[in-house]
Amino acid sequence: MKHTLPDQMTAVVLESYSGVAALKIQQRPVPKPGKNELLVKVAASPINPSDMAFLEGLYGRKASPPVIPGLEGSGTVVATGTSLLAKYFSGKKIACLAPPGGDGVWAEYMLTTPNYALPLLKTVDLEQGAMSVVNPLTALALLSIARKGGHKSIINTAAASSLGGMIQRVGQTEGIEVINIVRRPEQVELLKKADAAFVLDSSDPHFDRQLQDLCQEQGTRLAFDAVAGPITRRLLHAMPRDSKVTLYGGLSFEPAEAHPGHLIFENKRLDGFWLSSWLAKNNKIQNIQLWRQAQRMMATELHSSIRKKYPLEDVSAAVLDYQNHMTGGKVLIVP
Amino acid sequence: MKHTLPDQMTAVVLESYSGVAALKIQQRPVPKPGKNELLVKVAASPINPSDMAFLEGLYGRKASPPVIPGLEGSGTVVATGTSLLAKYFSGKKIACLAPPGGDGVWAEYMLTTPNYALPLLKTVDLEQGAMSVVNPLTALALLSIARKGGHKSIINTAAASSLGGMIQRVGQTEGIEVINIVRRPEQVELLKKADAAFVLDSSDPHFDRQLQDLCQEQGTRLAFDAVAGPITRRLLHAMPRDSKVTLYGGLSFEPAEAHPGHLIFENKRLDGFWLSSWLAKNNKIQNIQLWRQAQRMMATELHSSIRKKYPLEDVSAAVLDYQNHMTGGKVLIVP
Repeated sequence: MKHTLPDQMTAVVLESYSGVAALKIQQRPVPKPGKNELLVKVAASPINPSDMAFLEGLYGRKASPPVIPGLEGSGTVVATGTSLLAKYFSGKKIACLAPPGGDGVWAEYMLTTPNYALPLLKTVDLEQGAMSVVNPLTALALLSIARKGGHKSIINTAAASSLGGMIQRVGQTEGIEVINIVRRPEQVELLKKADAAFVLDSSDPHFDRQLQDLCQEQGTRLAFDAVAGPITRRLLHAMPRDSKVTLYGGLSFEPAEAHPGHLIFENKRLDGFWLSSWLAKNNKIQNIQLWRQAQRMMATELHSSIRKKYPLEDVSAAVLDYQNHMTGGKVLIVP
Repeated sequence: MKHTLPDQMTAVVLESYSGVAALKIQQRPVPKPGKNELLVKVAASPINPSDMAFLEGLYGRKASPPVIPGLEGSGTVVATGTSLLAKYFSGKKIACLAPPGGDGVWAEYMLTTPNYALPLLKTVDLEQGAMSVVNPLTALALLSIARKGGHKSIINTAAASSLGGMIQRVGQTEGIEVINIVRRPEQVELLKKADAAFVLDSSDPHFDRQLQDLCQEQGTRLAFDAVAGPITRRLLHAMPRDSKVTLYGGLSFEPAEAHPGHLIFENKRLDGFWLSSWLAKNNKIQNIQLWRQAQRMMATELHSSIRKKYPLEDVSAAVLDYQNHMTGGKVLIVP
């Protein structure tokens, strides 16, 4: 396959781990793929909470700045290294992740490796494909953890997010009740329209009582929390003894809180979930199957709606827009 | 055995779960033992952190107030019920615990059951015997958890307390290094004089760096924390990945904090330890053996020094004294 490659490309560069103010637009040389690498002409990349953490230096993986951010995306493989596996991807439309320690997706071109790339099914376009890893696999993983633990119901926070919707819908398919917790009254209606049976607003003065009653009624002993701060303590308070909160995000940018009495006297626990660690514990075949399963569900349970698209040059506006409207559809960066 | 029992006794009564201000001195009828109960003429009872939590309604067990507080103590069995097991205790000097949901030890007489009583060895006097359960068994239990988890070193906070000293000494006997964390510079000297190899002061500006270096050097992945609040987060920060903080107290009266990133990306966890739950998981024979082992170590590893004794009538002064000087020896209530 032939593709005339330019020498230079436009890229978003994070100059230091200090947030959106440290984002610059630069011209960079188009990278050359090593033996087992793929050069991807990027089509689209969503802004995820993990990207926000990355910009602040709070994500689980760091590279030395200056670094190109963007953890997932999609595109077409326009050049490959000489390994057989790399060549297999030549010309394919793929979903891809930034390789650990390397540059990310917010550029016209990016390098990745076969481990971090999966060909898109014909039914998945490049825009949906760009959002087919982080949120969809997280939703499938969390419900898989709940199912393996024998849970018939779970709590999820930040439930009005795109991922929140996926967790609600996958839970419905799997027969696991999801107690959706949102932070504003208007989000309650949004989720109820989307067929969620249980939606609570943590800003409601009766929230703690309502959640405690619901957890008792449903026997809920597992909560997935993307917010941290005081809500973590309130979840631990509301659930019956022998329950657990698993953090998978820190949207409040505050430490998670836990009341000592709940941990000591009621055998409650607090741990964390990271998709990368979870995937690393599976074998590679399982993960490819899971990724394909996610793609098959992209039009239904794992659909992401798109709120707005921004070119690379407007990345700062895109990030600020995302920070101010974290619900109501994803913000895409489209080089 | 004969003992002329008065009709009335002096007792400390907690009128509501609102701390030291709710403590009153009252005359109460001396209780009569039921079939499987023991009437104990109380000799002594220490003030423990768990008593402070009890006074505030923050302990794992509650009774309906008004209730006599005091979770452990010692005394002589002066009357028993008709069961064979109860009669076995007749006339014996024992260490005892308040039975769940019942009145406690801060009175001239108290009722308990054979499950919550153990005859004192001849080598243990009534004052040491009064302190032979809560702290000694906690120290033995925590080190047992560390040993079973394969830990060669652990962290302990509030290390200048009486229990802290026991944990340090039992650790030394068992070959498990204890990193002792205290909250004031003068406590460092105190512990170093007591042969502790590792003592850090959390008020030192270099504390976080020192603790992180020490944890890396020692491979420390387990911390026992009696304080909660920000120190919990600092422990999780300092230890390497795959580590755990187990809370066994909340001396700061603040929620435990945890940085979401540590839980999510570094597989760190937070749980709790309660002696009652831990003992309930063992069988009864194991627990009696453990309690006897504790008594044999009362003169050495599990020795408690006594700072001051107060009669029942001065219980409020005793509690305030204890709150203001939580290190330097135990405060005993002696009816």
